[in-house]
Amino acid sequence: MAMRARGFLLLRGGLGRGLARAPGVAERAWRGFGSSSVRHEAIIISGTEMAKQIQKEIQQGVESWIALGNRRPHLSILLVGDNPASHTYVRKKIKAASAVGICSELILKPETVSQEELLDVTDQLNMDPRVSGILVQLPLPDHVNERTICNGIAPEKDVDGFHIINIGRLCLDQHSLIPATASAVWEIIKRAGIETFGKNVLVAGRSKNVGMPIAMLLHTDGEHERPGGIPRLITADMVREGAAVIDVGINYVQDPMTGKTKLVGDVDFEAVKKKASFITPVPGGVGPMTVAMLLKNTLLAAKSIIY
Amino acid sequence: MAMRARGFLLLRGGLGRGLARAPGVAERAWRGFGSSSVRHEAIIISGTEMAKQIQKEIQQGVESWIALGNRRPHLSILLVGDNPASHTYVRKKIKAASAVGICSELILKPETVSQEELLDVTDQLNMDPRVSGILVQLPLPDHVNERTICNGIAPEKDVDGFHIINIGRLCLDQHSLIPATASAVWEIIKRAGIETFGKNVLVAGRSKNVGMPIAMLLHTDGEHERPGGIPRLITADMVREGAAVIDVGINYVQDPMTGKTKLVGDVDFEAVKKKASFITPVPGGVGPMTVAMLLKNTLLAAKSIIY
Repeated sequence: MAMRARGFLLLRGGLGRGLARAPGVAERAWRGFGSSSVRHEAIIISGTEMAKQIQKEIQQGVESWIALGNRRPHLSILLVGDNPASHTYVRKKIKAASAVGICSELILKPETVSQEELLDVTDQLNMDPRVSGILVQLPLPDHVNERTICNGIAPEKDVDGFHIINIGRLCLDQHSLIPATASAVWEIIKRAGIETFGKNVLVAGRSKNVGMPIAMLLHTDGEHERPGGIPRLITADMVREGAAVIDVGINYVQDPMTGKTKLVGDVDFEAVKKKASFITPVPGGVGPMTVAMLLKNTLLAAKSIIY
Repeated sequence: MAMRARGFLLLRGGLGRGLARAPGVAERAWRGFGSSSVRHEAIIISGTEMAKQIQKEIQQGVESWIALGNRRPHLSILLVGDNPASHTYVRKKIKAASAVGICSELILKPETVSQEELLDVTDQLNMDPRVSGILVQLPLPDHVNERTICNGIAPEKDVDGFHIINIGRLCLDQHSLIPATASAVWEIIKRAGIETFGKNVLVAGRSKNVGMPIAMLLHTDGEHERPGGIPRLITADMVREGAAVIDVGINYVQDPMTGKTKLVGDVDFEAVKKKASFITPVPGGVGPMTVAMLLKNTLLAAKSIIY
């Protein structure tokens, strides 16, 4: 999965907004993580160096947390089967945890373990006050539903951030436990002082574990709630020949001729309809369909089709 | 909020994949909903006509559901304050509900109602077996947290699809109750036979109630889980001068010289680093950062900062 911020320029001395948002960090990125500063060559961001820095911060956080008389953070890792890559990843996580003063325990289960048995384990870990974080190393065997297991972990202990509630909170820009890989990309961008607000970003890869969470983090970068629609926001010159245009705008404007208020969308309907292949009018487009879909949802709910 | 499918062509006779996916419907869209078919002019999709068709289908669904001895679907609408637009919307919903044989009840509360009182109402409706769907008309007064109220509705009765669990399920491409406006846009696209798979779609508007759900519906249109990374998927010619490139790829390849297997990402590192402003290597980029962020999550969980 590669990510590209188009039109981003190599800034000298400071990294603009990025620097303003994370003072010091950007410069540290520049000096510490920048192993190359030759003109026309990229600054190679060393994740290894950045991770060392973060682990120092975590270690300090752990110690001061314990100094306040709290229990030492504890990570329980559930590993199923003999996938060598999974075993390697888990070893790295355990090693790194002990390095920052986080205790961890490894629970090994054979490839043949049943889904019920795994849910029993997560239930016990959910209830165990010693356990602060639970991680189920993916992938799981085919006879186990990964989604069911991820949702079996208590959201507040779901350190991989894959529980449906953590994903929902992430997508709604609420505080949540963020999937570690997406969080890693985000942290690299912030600490290197790379500016993303208002930039075009290509997230190549649409997996639900990595691509989607990264896209959502970038989607909620800065303001995302803006004042409703704007009449004629979308003009014909913005629309390619043969495009399909669906207008969800709702604006009440006063007719200069009659003086009456009338309902219009965000699209310059008369001009755009000459270029588009499909177009929905306002009123009489998305509005009535919205009501219909609400009723469809009500029927689905009555029939308990979803839940 | 306007949506554009770039490079979409006006198809004659049939609507290709769209037709294949929804036989009949596309043609119906063409004849029934297409009030204009003059060359170089868009087909105006009448949401009003499409909604009538869907409401017929819902009415039949309701009747056959009842014919099986089930209780008639019931929609409870909670309306707070005197916002005239909200009252208009609610009237439309009640009228449309009765037209398809869905009973509805309107619960009116004054602008001054407390959040606790509203949660008591939703609790009662959640427990009431007569109630199949619950809708809280937004916006709510400033002293009430809309998110808290939306999450106070039982997910299985959340016909507006705003509960955190319904949003999470939507984003993970699982069956869920989908927000009505996003669902309306989706249904218009499908019934008109507009093909979106593999197309560029611009969702103008990033609200969490409309823009984000629509983007997620389109994001999960077709396969989204693809085989991991591909070495040198991202070549220098794809990267604009000064771009920031973060490589999340993990590929084990055999070195033609030494014959040893080595780890590489998805980016042609040596070539791309000459054009990019920032780049992360593999190994030593996102990998170690991912482990660090996992530990950070564990500390957050231990400190109960999120939940």
